[in-house]
Amino acid sequence: MGSDSSVEESLLLAPKFDADGLVTCVDTDASNGDVLMVAHMNREALNRTVETGEAWYYSRSRKALWKKGESSGHVQRVIEMRVDCDQDAIWIKVEQTGGGACHTGRRSCFYRAVPLGQSGSVALQFQDAERAFDPAAVYKK
Amino acid sequence: MGSDSSVEESLLLAPKFDADGLVTCVDTDASNGDVLMVAHMNREALNRTVETGEAWYYSRSRKALWKKGESSGHVQRVIEMRVDCDQDAIWIKVEQTGGGACHTGRRSCFYRAVPLGQSGSVALQFQDAERAFDPAAVYKK
Repeated sequence: MGSDSSVEESLLLAPKFDADGLVTCVDTDASNGDVLMVAHMNREALNRTVETGEAWYYSRSRKALWKKGESSGHVQRVIEMRVDCDQDAIWIKVEQTGGGACHTGRRSCFYRAVPLGQSGSVALQFQDAERAFDPAAVYKK
Repeated sequence: MGSDSSVEESLLLAPKFDADGLVTCVDTDASNGDVLMVAHMNREALNRTVETGEAWYYSRSRKALWKKGESSGHVQRVIEMRVDCDQDAIWIKVEQTGGGACHTGRRSCFYRAVPLGQSGSVALQFQDAERAFDPAAVYKK
C-alpha cells in the first residue's frame, strides 16, 4: 500500500505509463455504470481522448493507435474522465454509439458471469449476452 | 480486433493471465456503478475470490497475495463477478465496507476529474474527494 502524496494529491495530470508505455482504461456506460470494456491508452491515445472527447486507445495486439469506432462507426463520446490515485488507470464514462462496445456484438465485453462460492472448474453463465449488433455485418469480415 | 470464438463463446472460466501471471480486475460499487479501484489478480487471488465471495488481489508493488481489507478491515463483499470476451479482465460489483476502497481514505481511487477539450498541460479537478475514513488512523502508520 505505497502512498505518495506528491502524486495522490497533485492536480497535474501525469500518467504513470507502464514499461510498454500504457495505462489501463476502464469504460463505463454513463447511463447505468455498467463496465463496457477494459482497454489501454498510450500517451497519444490519452491526449487525443482529452482533446476530442471521443475515446482513443492503443491496441496491444495490432500495436497501433486506434480510435474506438474507426471500423464499426461505433464511437464513444466521453462524458467524464477520471484518473486514479497513482495515475496508472483511467476511468471514462461514455455514451456508446451503435449499441455495443464489444467486438462480439454485445453491449459490454463482460457478458459472462462467474458464479461465486465454488472451487475447482467453474462454469460461466451468459448474462446480458444478447447481441446489440451483428459483428459480421459491421466489421465486414 | 482479433476474434477467437472458442474463447469468446466458451462457458469455461479460463483466464488469460499475462506474462506476470495477472489479470486486471475492475471493482465497481454495486449500489451505483462508480468505479472504486483497478487492481490485479493472480490465479490464487481469483480462486479465493470465487470461493469466498470476498475480494483478494495480488499486489505488484509488494509482490504478495492480498486480501482487500486485511490491514484496514475494509473488506469487499462481491455481489457479482463477470469476465470479459478474451478473459483477460475481471469485473466485480462489490459492497465496500468501511466507507472507502482507496488507501488515501476516499470512497473511490478515482477522485480527480480530467477536464476534456484541452491540449497541453492539463489541470485535474478534485471530485468526490472527501475522505470516507482517516488513512493514518486505519493503517496505523
